[in-house]
Amino acid sequence: MERTLAWVGLNALPSLTPGRLRRLLSALGGPVEAWQAARGDLARVLGEEPAAMLDRERAGFSPEKELELAERLGAKVLTWDAPDFPPPLREIPEPPPVLYLMGELREEDLAGIAIVGTRRCTSYGRLVARSLARELAARGVTVISGLAPGIDRAAHQGALESGRTVAVLGTGLARPYPAGSEELMKEIAASGAVLSEFPLEQPGSRWTFPRRNRLIAGLSLGVVVVEAPARSGALITADYALEQGKEVFAVPGPITSEASAGSNRLIQEGAKLVTSADDVLVEFPEWILSPSTEGEGGDLDLDADARAVYDLLGLEPLGISELGERTGLSHARLSQILVELELAGLIQDLGGRRYIKAR
Amino acid sequence: MERTLAWVGLNALPSLTPGRLRRLLSALGGPVEAWQAARGDLARVLGEEPAAMLDRERAGFSPEKELELAERLGAKVLTWDAPDFPPPLREIPEPPPVLYLMGELREEDLAGIAIVGTRRCTSYGRLVARSLARELAARGVTVISGLAPGIDRAAHQGALESGRTVAVLGTGLARPYPAGSEELMKEIAASGAVLSEFPLEQPGSRWTFPRRNRLIAGLSLGVVVVEAPARSGALITADYALEQGKEVFAVPGPITSEASAGSNRLIQEGAKLVTSADDVLVEFPEWILSPSTEGEGGDLDLDADARAVYDLLGLEPLGISELGERTGLSHARLSQILVELELAGLIQDLGGRRYIKAR
Repeated sequence: MERTLAWVGLNALPSLTPGRLRRLLSALGGPVEAWQAARGDLARVLGEEPAAMLDRERAGFSPEKELELAERLGAKVLTWDAPDFPPPLREIPEPPPVLYLMGELREEDLAGIAIVGTRRCTSYGRLVARSLARELAARGVTVISGLAPGIDRAAHQGALESGRTVAVLGTGLARPYPAGSEELMKEIAASGAVLSEFPLEQPGSRWTFPRRNRLIAGLSLGVVVVEAPARSGALITADYALEQGKEVFAVPGPITSEASAGSNRLIQEGAKLVTSADDVLVEFPEWILSPSTEGEGGDLDLDADARAVYDLLGLEPLGISELGERTGLSHARLSQILVELELAGLIQDLGGRRYIKAR
Repeated sequence: MERTLAWVGLNALPSLTPGRLRRLLSALGGPVEAWQAARGDLARVLGEEPAAMLDRERAGFSPEKELELAERLGAKVLTWDAPDFPPPLREIPEPPPVLYLMGELREEDLAGIAIVGTRRCTSYGRLVARSLARELAARGVTVISGLAPGIDRAAHQGALESGRTVAVLGTGLARPYPAGSEELMKEIAASGAVLSEFPLEQPGSRWTFPRRNRLIAGLSLGVVVVEAPARSGALITADYALEQGKEVFAVPGPITSEASAGSNRLIQEGAKLVTSADDVLVEFPEWILSPSTEGEGGDLDLDADARAVYDLLGLEPLGISELGERTGLSHARLSQILVELELAGLIQDLGGRRYIKAR
């Protein structure tokens, strides 16, 4: 227990970089010694100024209160030298001393597929992230992502519809980003896991989100970038994945869409172009593959005409006359089908009776 | 002249396959001998039935009238043993005995870039084909395509805006597909060339269009597939290009769009992903490259605000409030800019004040 408290304390000190932590541990013997070290001992290892800073930070943080808060939140605390610490996250560069966990990490969660992308995604990206995630999770693959709005959230939602998902946060568990994510976190934790390396009340910042991405890559056998503009945190995750020897995948998008500029560039640089869950699964022969039987909407009981209309629709809006031409269905029949599909939430009327696929 | 008439005649016989033509030429000595051969001689080389068929076909075709029609149309006739026959088309498998040409073929037209794709393209495909073609042509590259509706036509139009283009028809020059293409053909011929290997009055058929594609590949250093569904003539052109050792490029598209299924697949199979003319040009160091100074709309005199709005728009419709958020411009200023951009034909209102880029 003393050791856990020490790890939690050390993990909470902003100025204790991984390099400094390593130096303290090897000079002083272990986490308890490092956490309880006299300021003079800290100074001997790190120098006067860093020691003073650490000492101040240490005075402002109570590991005991942190553990109480964790208990109230229902979060477990995993430390990197404990047997329940996820082994793949021990092997990444700069493994976190502490992980906070809500829910349960299973073995399959340590060999998942990450689906990541921009917060400012388009409806195309959202649709693709959700359906890819749904299909992967249905095939027994845990979908890893970052809880952020946009692609991450769509990926979690898709996975929740058919299987397991793990969220890795760029904030403390008590301060999820975006505000108001508690509901979704609970849902994810109930059937999967929510993870963070940050002290529970750490707010998100420009450095926490990129840093968190190495954990997303670390839990994954491969990373799928769905929509990423030219500069995007998702590309950082892809870089971590490459650095860690993982596969990198990208979903292509229109070259006229800023939101796909980064993903298209990744493909030019060698990422595998993904059009379906099978394109991902085929890279991992250790998973038993069976041809996907469920397309989008494949679980729905559509008659042949409705299916034909649904299959024709994509993100390019189609009008009723064009649908009539392509399906050969009468205007009356088509109207009826379109209403049914819209009521079922499968398609969306953009206005002026121009339709796109909604899922 | 006699020789030209003979080639034109032989070229017009539907049952005279390339193999049979080769056998006749080598057995009888040359085109004149083959065209004028007695039926018995034909039978000796090809067998009774093929000879009877050829004899009937020959009786129904007058090379003299064909040449008269060519003259009326302003078309030149190039035969494969004449010095003005384009050398690259002599080297492809099954070179055509005769080419009909309107306009003028220049040396640079024999090392162009083909832009091909589906007739049933989306507005995205049309936009991309046109702007890629415009940019390539502006850089001195002749854009080769097939005159068909959809991507081909958009490519010709884009190239006409800034440089040279060559259309290769899947019909005779007197029967262009689609009907009513005469105007566009004339425009292309006036500053480039229109080519066909088929007798002038040959209508298009299921076999003429794919066959024509080997000429498109033959004239090109590389083929860019813009939008192609899973089965598409454009993929045949890509196959010919590979067979002829040319580069194959593809423009990615949404994985939810049927119209991009074939192009995305091509990229998975190794085609180079193209997001700009530079991605094509960089493969051909023999062309002197200068960074593109002209983006879409780059020739237009937009002020900074209008430019910012225009640059934000793509094919994902954006509403005025979203544009306001992203640009920081007032509603009034935005309204004014949007009207100006729409009047300039640069953007399109999809209804409900939701805008996309129009070019």
